[in-house]
Amino acid sequence: MIYADNAATTRMSEAAINTMTELMKEGWGNPSSLYVHGQKAKEILEKAREEIAEIISAAPREIYFTSGGSEADNQAILSAAALGRKNGKMHIVSSAFEHHAVLHTLSKLEKEGFEITLLNVHEDGLIVPEEAAEAIRDDTCLVTVMYANNEIGTIQPIRKIGAVCREKGVLFHVDAVQAVGHIPVNVAEDNIDMLSASAHKFHGPKGVGFLYAKKGVRLSNLIEGGAQERGKRAGTENVPGIASMATALKEAVSKMQENTEHQTVMRDRLIAGLQRIPHCALNGDAVHRLPGNVNFCFEGIEGESLLLLLDDRGICASSGSACTSGSLDPSHVLLAIGRVHDVAHGSLRLSIGEEISEKEVDYMIQSVTEVVGYLRGFSPIWRDLMAGKKEFIL
Amino acid sequence: MIYADNAATTRMSEAAINTMTELMKEGWGNPSSLYVHGQKAKEILEKAREEIAEIISAAPREIYFTSGGSEADNQAILSAAALGRKNGKMHIVSSAFEHHAVLHTLSKLEKEGFEITLLNVHEDGLIVPEEAAEAIRDDTCLVTVMYANNEIGTIQPIRKIGAVCREKGVLFHVDAVQAVGHIPVNVAEDNIDMLSASAHKFHGPKGVGFLYAKKGVRLSNLIEGGAQERGKRAGTENVPGIASMATALKEAVSKMQENTEHQTVMRDRLIAGLQRIPHCALNGDAVHRLPGNVNFCFEGIEGESLLLLLDDRGICASSGSACTSGSLDPSHVLLAIGRVHDVAHGSLRLSIGEEISEKEVDYMIQSVTEVVGYLRGFSPIWRDLMAGKKEFIL
Repeated sequence: MIYADNAATTRMSEAAINTMTELMKEGWGNPSSLYVHGQKAKEILEKAREEIAEIISAAPREIYFTSGGSEADNQAILSAAALGRKNGKMHIVSSAFEHHAVLHTLSKLEKEGFEITLLNVHEDGLIVPEEAAEAIRDDTCLVTVMYANNEIGTIQPIRKIGAVCREKGVLFHVDAVQAVGHIPVNVAEDNIDMLSASAHKFHGPKGVGFLYAKKGVRLSNLIEGGAQERGKRAGTENVPGIASMATALKEAVSKMQENTEHQTVMRDRLIAGLQRIPHCALNGDAVHRLPGNVNFCFEGIEGESLLLLLDDRGICASSGSACTSGSLDPSHVLLAIGRVHDVAHGSLRLSIGEEISEKEVDYMIQSVTEVVGYLRGFSPIWRDLMAGKKEFIL
Repeated sequence: MIYADNAATTRMSEAAINTMTELMKEGWGNPSSLYVHGQKAKEILEKAREEIAEIISAAPREIYFTSGGSEADNQAILSAAALGRKNGKMHIVSSAFEHHAVLHTLSKLEKEGFEITLLNVHEDGLIVPEEAAEAIRDDTCLVTVMYANNEIGTIQPIRKIGAVCREKGVLFHVDAVQAVGHIPVNVAEDNIDMLSASAHKFHGPKGVGFLYAKKGVRLSNLIEGGAQERGKRAGTENVPGIASMATALKEAVSKMQENTEHQTVMRDRLIAGLQRIPHCALNGDAVHRLPGNVNFCFEGIEGESLLLLLDDRGICASSGSACTSGSLDPSHVLLAIGRVHDVAHGSLRLSIGEEISEKEVDYMIQSVTEVVGYLRGFSPIWRDLMAGKKEFIL
């Protein structure tokens, strides 16, 4: 099996599995308990908090553990909205290609009277900081932009957008689910006020993530109850999962440079190989993108069939976000960068892992080339294109 | 170590650890993915859903996986409130000794204009169904009562309260975090519309729980985003954790009768032994209580000191809920059953596990007796009581 869907989820690292297994056996105490067994769990929890905080240049008390990236996104945005409502600032700036954890939360707020401005995402899959600056109004309470896009992998000019927000005194939230553990993230230098991350995207366990909230940013509870996480996130802390996340993140960061160098070479080889297929296009900028992300549109085919045939050849890939699979709508990300419906339907995301080999890349190039050719042989759209009844877009 | 704080959290069972470990290695696919590796994860997920549903007599599609009991409580209550608001029904009935995941969510709703009636909890730690019936009004949208109390372990007449709610056409939510896996729970016979549970209370992993919502009950999202859990709970499913929860629950249920018989004998031996200490009282009814729960108030002492000295003797115990530890306020549960502040401060919860031995019970009786005597030797309140300057309450 060649697993090329690391943007959907990653295989847990051996070290992360070991931490989890050890702590399920030994570190199962309730960290809120007074006795030594509970306090030991508390120590493990706080050590994980320190380690994670250090990696993103935050203070430990600025890290709040959550059940994952979606929860963190929801809590961050609703917290900023609650502050905005209090201060009569009910305008939020975001972008059209955010993850649904962000977009659906914004839709909910829109129904409650908030006004949402979605920044234009340009053809290259990038947002322009100057346009963010122009979109901010006196009543803007939040700018929320993702660090790297989950479908096309483009890395946004976060530091510049952050500087704009800091200058204008507007809270800045960053969904960094695809970035943390993969590219350097520094909340201090990037001027980030709130940041969401998810462990299973960097070889940690599922069901665990964290929200960074800068000191002074008042969080509202998404989950009310016990006084855990400084009263901001109720529920017994998942100590084994949290410690396992810290293990995975430390490992990812320690190998980041080496991984990035290898992945970038493999990614670019994969892109170059696929670009030889006629009537296709890379989605998103070729340079400002995650080292593991490849995303193409192929004219005249249907993404789902492509995936199933690649699966037959042992390649795990996706056409976009796993979160929206089952939906018949084309990707909102591809539409946001200007792909038309027909073309957006023929998309393929190959998000390669750190250990991908040249041989595997070449096998993927060969397989995709063959399968695209095969599918076009059956495609009525392709027939029309070839017969000149329809014009090629790509 | 004698672990007598199973109401706070439980040691994971070997079977639950094995399921988790195996699936962290083999079942880490994203269940929303189309390829076989993802679909295998989906199968594991759906099998867990079926197993859990069957145990509580629900249909699989009525089970929604969450990050734990607190999340499930929040979602259930907010969902009922959203429906209520829509229908102009903004009154909720609950009880004074619910978990804070319930009470704090209700406080939030109160600020939004909901009216909350908290049922009286009688001295025996029980709610009277007739009083629930009387509290329900034409504008009541929800009754939420816990199955078994987390501090004093009293088991509520859920079936009767459920029948009242069904008759009056009011939604009935039950926080069953302390009950599921410990006593029989049957949502059909108990007339329950929504039910919350948490894996780490029945020897499963932390960070996983579920919400049962009867077919036809429209849930609102607490976490917006991807289309997971039939669109009602976003975020990549924690498949290893969910399957591990199912393993733990199956095991707990298969051993329930045997465990209950043993624990009840041990519990009653512990209660009888502690009752020989002068000026103490069992909190909550002696019969309608969880097989593992013992909760006492001792006059003239401070619960926290008691816990620390018991910890020195290798006994893990608590004075109440772990979720509120660190707070100086006395337990709201003990106040709800009529204990005065001074007495409520001197509480001890021993929530024994399934494998507790007679020898361990006797050791606990001896230790508590000695430590209570020791602490009273230093207590100014006890001195005043003995000198007749203050009257004994217990």
